Amino acid sequence: VGTPKFYSDRLYDKTPPGVVTGLAWTSMGGSTLFIETVLKKPLDDGNEKEKGSLEITGNLGNVMKESAQLAYTFTKSFFTQQYPEKDYLQKASIHLHVPEGATPKDGPSAGCTIVTALVSLALNEPVRDNLAMTGEVSLTGKVLAVGGIKEKIIAAKRVGINTIILPEENRKDFVDLQDFIKEDLEAHFVKHYNEVFKIAFPNL
Amino acid sequence: VGTPKFYSDRLYDKTPPGVVTGLAWTSMGGSTLFIETVLKKPLDDGNEKEKGSLEITGNLGNVMKESAQLAYTFTKSFFTQQYPEKDYLQKASIHLHVPEGATPKDGPSAGCTIVTALVSLALNEPVRDNLAMTGEVSLTGKVLAVGGIKEKIIAAKRVGINTIILPEENRKDFVDLQDFIKEDLEAHFVKHYNEVFKIAFPNL
Amino acid sequence: VGTPKFYSDRLYDKTPPGVVTGLAWTSMGGSTLFIETVLKKPLDDGNEKEKGSLEITGNLGNVMKESAQLAYTFTKSFFTQQYPEKDYLQKASIHLHVPEGATPKDGPSAGCTIVTALVSLALNEPVRDNLAMTGEVSLTGKVLAVGGIKEKIIAAKRVGINTIILPEENRKDFVDLQDFIKEDLEAHFVKHYNEVFKIAFPNL
Repeated sequence: VGTPKFYSDRLYDKTPPGVVTGLAWTSMGGSTLFIETVLKKPLDDGNEKEKGSLEITGNLGNVMKESAQLAYTFTKSFFTQQYPEKDYLQKASIHLHVPEGATPKDGPSAGCTIVTALVSLALNEPVRDNLAMTGEVSLTGKVLAVGGIKEKIIAAKRVGINTIILPEENRKDFVDLQDFIKEDLEAHFVKHYNEVFKIAFPNL
Repeated sequence: VGTPKFYSDRLYDKTPPGVVTGLAWTSMGGSTLFIETVLKKPLDDGNEKEKGSLEITGNLGNVMKESAQLAYTFTKSFFTQQYPEKDYLQKASIHLHVPEGATPKDGPSAGCTIVTALVSLALNEPVRDNLAMTGEVSLTGKVLAVGGIKEKIIAAKRVGINTIILPEENRKDFVDLQDFIKEDLEAHFVKHYNEVFKIAFPNL
Repeated sequence: VGTPKFYSDRLYDKTPPGVVTGLAWTSMGGSTLFIETVLKKPLDDGNEKEKGSLEITGNLGNVMKESAQLAYTFTKSFFTQQYPEKDYLQKASIHLHVPEGATPKDGPSAGCTIVTALVSLALNEPVRDNLAMTGEVSLTGKVLAVGGIKEKIIAAKRVGINTIILPEENRKDFVDLQDFIKEDLEAHFVKHYNEVFKIAFPNL
C-alpha cells in the first residue's frame, strides 16, 4: 500500500538534552527512531508522590517497556556511581516517549539509547552531533548483540548520522558489510555501557 | 445501516476555555471532534491527593490515551516555560473527555488539540473562533504528520471552520487538494507547538 | 427461555434522594433502570483517604463506567456553581450502583440520569415524581442524542412515568412517534444539563 513514510527520520536536526537517536529494524527495513525524555514537573515542588518515577508512552510492546524499565534502573545506579553528589534521578519524575505514537515498537535493542537519553537529561547535556546507537543493555550495563545491523546502518546514513555505536558482539556483522555502506562512518564497538558514555559525551 | 450521524459536529457553536475542535478520520470519512477539559475540583482545597493529575474518558484506544498523557506532560513543561509565575497545572486535577462516549476513538493525531485544550483551560482563555487543528505532538513539542488531510478538511468546512492548523509535513497533502476544497480556508503549517500557540491565542 | 423479567421496573414506587429513573434500550426492547447513589461513610469522619471519591458497581461496561466518571466530574463543577457554599461533593465518598448486578449494562445514555442522582443525593432532595430521563452528557454539560427513543418511552409508560426528559437532538424521533405513544406524557427537550436540573427539581 504505497511507500511507508518514516517522518521521524527528520524530526530533529540536532537532538536536545534528553533526546537520543536510536535505530530500529522492521520487516520493511531499517529506520531511525528518537528516544525522548523530559522532566514531568519541577524537581523540588514539595510533592513527593511521583519522585523517582518513569512514565513510558509510544505504543511500545512489553519487551520494549521492560527494556525501558531496566534501562531506568541501570541508569540510576550508573549515574550515582559517576556523580555521587547528584540526586537528580532520585528526585525526578520522568516521561519517556518514542514518536510516532501510532507505530507499534518492540524489542530490547533500544536499551543503550534509553540509558543515554536518561543520562543526557540528568546532565542537561546533549550527546555529540550525528550520533546513533543500537544495543540491548543488561541490568548491570553489559551491551548485548542485536539484529538488523545492515538495515539500521543504511537508515542511519540516510539521515546524516556519521558516528555509530554497536555492540562488540555485532562487529562481525559490520565487517562483512560492503565498503560503500561503511564509508564515511565512524563505528564504535562496545561491551559495557561505560564505553557508550565516553563516546556519547566526549567533553565530560 | 443508514447514515452515520455525527452529532458532535454541532455540539458547540463557540468553544469555551478548555474546549478545542480537533479533526478525526475514520473509515467512514472525516469528522470533527471536541476535546473537552475541565477542572475536577477547586485548585486550593487542601486535598493533595490528585494535585497535578489528568483523568481521561471518551472510549479512547491505547494510542490516544498515551497521546493524551504525553500531551499533558508536554503542556506542563511548555506552560511553565511561557508563564513561569503560574502553577495552575502543578495544582490542577483535570478531567479530559472526548464526546461521544460510545464512539471508539484512537490514534495520535489529536496531540496538538489536547495540548491546546489544556493550555486554554490553564489560561481560562478560549481559542480563536472557528479554528480546528490536527497533528501528532512529540514529548518535546515537535508536530508530526497525520493522515486523512483531505477528509478532515472537508469535515471541518462542513461545520464552519475557517482557520486550520496542520503539520508542516502535511503541506504537500494540502497543496495537492482541489481548489474548491481549499478556498475560504486559512491554513497554517507548523513544525513545533510554539507556532500552534501563537495562532490559537492571537491576543496573548 | 421464557419472557425476560425486568425486576427493576418495580424496584421503587417513589424514588428517594439519590435515586433517579433512567431508560435503557437493549436488543430485547426498552426498559427502565435505576441509578442509585448513597454516601459510603459519614462526611466528616476524619478519614481523608476517600474524600471526594466515587465507587461504581452494577456490571457496567467500560463506556458506562466512563460515563459515570465524567458525570461525576461535571456534577462537582455544576454543583459548586449552583451552591458555592456547599462542599458536600468535595467531602463525600459516594457509591453508585445500577441494579440488577447480574445484568450487563453499557453505553453513555445514562449520563443525565447519573448527574441528577448525584445532585439529588448532594441536596438530599428527591426528584419530582414519575420522572424519567435519557441523554448522554458531555464534560461541560451539553446533552447529546441517544438511541432507542421509541422503545424507551414505551417502557417508561409501562411503569407509570408521565414526565420525560430527552435530548433536543432527539426531538424529531419523538415527534415521529404515533400519537397513542405520546399521549399522557409531558416531554421536555434539553440542550444543556441546566435545563434538566430545573425540570427535575421544580421547587428549588
